[in-house]
Amino acid sequence: MIQAKRLVEGMLQEAGVQLDGPNPWDIHVKDERLFERVLRWKNLGLGEAYMDGWWECPRVDEFICRILKAKLDERLRFNIRDLPHLLPALFVNLQSKGRVRLSAEAHYDRDTELFMSFLDPFNQYSCAYFNGTGDLNEAQERKLDLICRKIDLKPGDRVLDIGCGWGGFARYAAERYGCVVTAINVCRDQIRYAREFCRDLPVLIMECDYRDCTETFHKIVSIGMFEHVGYRNYRLFMRCVRRCLNDDGIFLLQTIGSNQSRVRTDPWIGTYIFPDSMLPSIAQIGRAIEGLFVMEDWHNLGPHYDRTLMAWYRNFQGAWERLRKRFDDRFRRMWEYYLLSCAGAFRARSIQLWQIVLTPCGRAQPACRL
Amino acid sequence: MIQAKRLVEGMLQEAGVQLDGPNPWDIHVKDERLFERVLRWKNLGLGEAYMDGWWECPRVDEFICRILKAKLDERLRFNIRDLPHLLPALFVNLQSKGRVRLSAEAHYDRDTELFMSFLDPFNQYSCAYFNGTGDLNEAQERKLDLICRKIDLKPGDRVLDIGCGWGGFARYAAERYGCVVTAINVCRDQIRYAREFCRDLPVLIMECDYRDCTETFHKIVSIGMFEHVGYRNYRLFMRCVRRCLNDDGIFLLQTIGSNQSRVRTDPWIGTYIFPDSMLPSIAQIGRAIEGLFVMEDWHNLGPHYDRTLMAWYRNFQGAWERLRKRFDDRFRRMWEYYLLSCAGAFRARSIQLWQIVLTPCGRAQPACRL
Repeated sequence: MIQAKRLVEGMLQEAGVQLDGPNPWDIHVKDERLFERVLRWKNLGLGEAYMDGWWECPRVDEFICRILKAKLDERLRFNIRDLPHLLPALFVNLQSKGRVRLSAEAHYDRDTELFMSFLDPFNQYSCAYFNGTGDLNEAQERKLDLICRKIDLKPGDRVLDIGCGWGGFARYAAERYGCVVTAINVCRDQIRYAREFCRDLPVLIMECDYRDCTETFHKIVSIGMFEHVGYRNYRLFMRCVRRCLNDDGIFLLQTIGSNQSRVRTDPWIGTYIFPDSMLPSIAQIGRAIEGLFVMEDWHNLGPHYDRTLMAWYRNFQGAWERLRKRFDDRFRRMWEYYLLSCAGAFRARSIQLWQIVLTPCGRAQPACRL
Repeated sequence: MIQAKRLVEGMLQEAGVQLDGPNPWDIHVKDERLFERVLRWKNLGLGEAYMDGWWECPRVDEFICRILKAKLDERLRFNIRDLPHLLPALFVNLQSKGRVRLSAEAHYDRDTELFMSFLDPFNQYSCAYFNGTGDLNEAQERKLDLICRKIDLKPGDRVLDIGCGWGGFARYAAERYGCVVTAINVCRDQIRYAREFCRDLPVLIMECDYRDCTETFHKIVSIGMFEHVGYRNYRLFMRCVRRCLNDDGIFLLQTIGSNQSRVRTDPWIGTYIFPDSMLPSIAQIGRAIEGLFVMEDWHNLGPHYDRTLMAWYRNFQGAWERLRKRFDDRFRRMWEYYLLSCAGAFRARSIQLWQIVLTPCGRAQPACRL
């Protein structure tokens, strides 16, 4: 036990983090079993220990940012205990059609009111664009508008939204740009909500897997859904998008991205937040689009996701008085750890947020660099 | 012979090209052996036949654009005759230190006056940026300035230019931004020229392979040189750049890019214009930077290279009266075919021009999206 403490303390010191120190990113240990749990289960153990109240920190986001910048996560190297997490990703298509609704509903149909308590009025559960504004609601509208302008949206355009969430983009594009939107999703609660949210607009919300879509469209967007596609299906996803896009169409993909090619997600995130999720790398996306699309523009908005997550965290804190009737304290700590550790990961530049504009080979370049 | 003609004629028709037709992109056959040469040697045969005067076309650029858009190049599929071109790329590092000067000097030290006859006053032998201007000289200055702004160039910055050509960027950065530039190159004629071009400025032009550079810099650029690095060396190149860059530095790579991962160049270009050159793909660059850099921005300026090449072609035509004393007519046709077929390839969106901003992992994002 004492040896475990010394080991962890030494590593934290390299990252500029002290045990019980005076800085807001220093951690305060409430249960000494933390050290062995971290050595044994790494970030899974760290997150679970936080949920259990074994440690506290005034600024979890800054703490995570520091340990990622010091690459402590890489120092705690692979061991045999990772196998139960790794093997399924290697031998099973975790994002198969049969399984994908289970994974998606596990997160998104959790409790609509939970999400609405911290999201903006367009229910954007993806990165905002804090361009000339510090306000989340404004920044989400700017993100939506940025996407509409990048795909050169015109009145009457038929648009496909793959993984439409609660219908925010569909409504924005139909209301502000006069398009006709088909939006597909596999989460039934989201579909119900989105239908209501887009009522009286030329928006069709369909329960449909991206693999089953056969119509063609002028424009296609997929915003914050590619993280659930899985590396085995990246090429198939791109083939499906190409099949559904006119030859002179434009596709915009917004996704969180990884600096390195991986075949599994962070174990804590995979266990508690997004089952079967996976972050793509540049190389993986590059391979998936070869021969199908020309890459017109690759915009990294990573730092905007840091700000988005911090705004969600503040909203969540403000809503807790209402939410506490339905969620226990362990859930609150889990949700806080999720929002703050992800903000820290973006701040450390460990993960990125990409908007990628793709067009079918041979088409003239659209003015997508705005 | 007649069968070959029918076959080629049929394929050209699919691309909207007629034999002896009235359109500027239609071709006029002067020697009927053209058809067999094309079937046998594909684009190598097509280009050589043009050099030999076996066919004419009022707009070679538009003709090439059409056959690439129709993907005729893919229809003439791989055959055993490609092996002599393909095997060296598979089994030999064509861009090894020993060989690289030979390859580079074969092109760049060809004849300085030839290049100066069609380039702008900064001797930019790479894509210009026609942003708000139609003038090549103005567009090359805008390209240089765009690069300086993307890397946030400040007075006193120590900058490394890998593959500096005739010293245009080095002079621009030193004169306009007050930086101290180290520029490396392996072509001796270029080095001589660049030293004279940057005289009395804080610019050091060194004969040095990128693999041998050990100093560190605030900023690094490589403009139009990565095409000579070779797929076997992409990772090594990125390691060398990382080693030479401060932890808070910025690296900008400008390179022509391919829509697909390949291990060899076009045989005609490789034979007559750029020996041992090779165009990288997104996947290849993505793999090469993993764990070394964060990709901050990926800008596709492909259509600007079409305009650049057409401007070079017009300048070359205008200079021919002077140049004809030293070059024969076959050379003129070769150079025309080079400039116009590349312009057509960019217009068909078969190849791209990328500016990629990369920073060491962990650094805050620079404002590189301008």
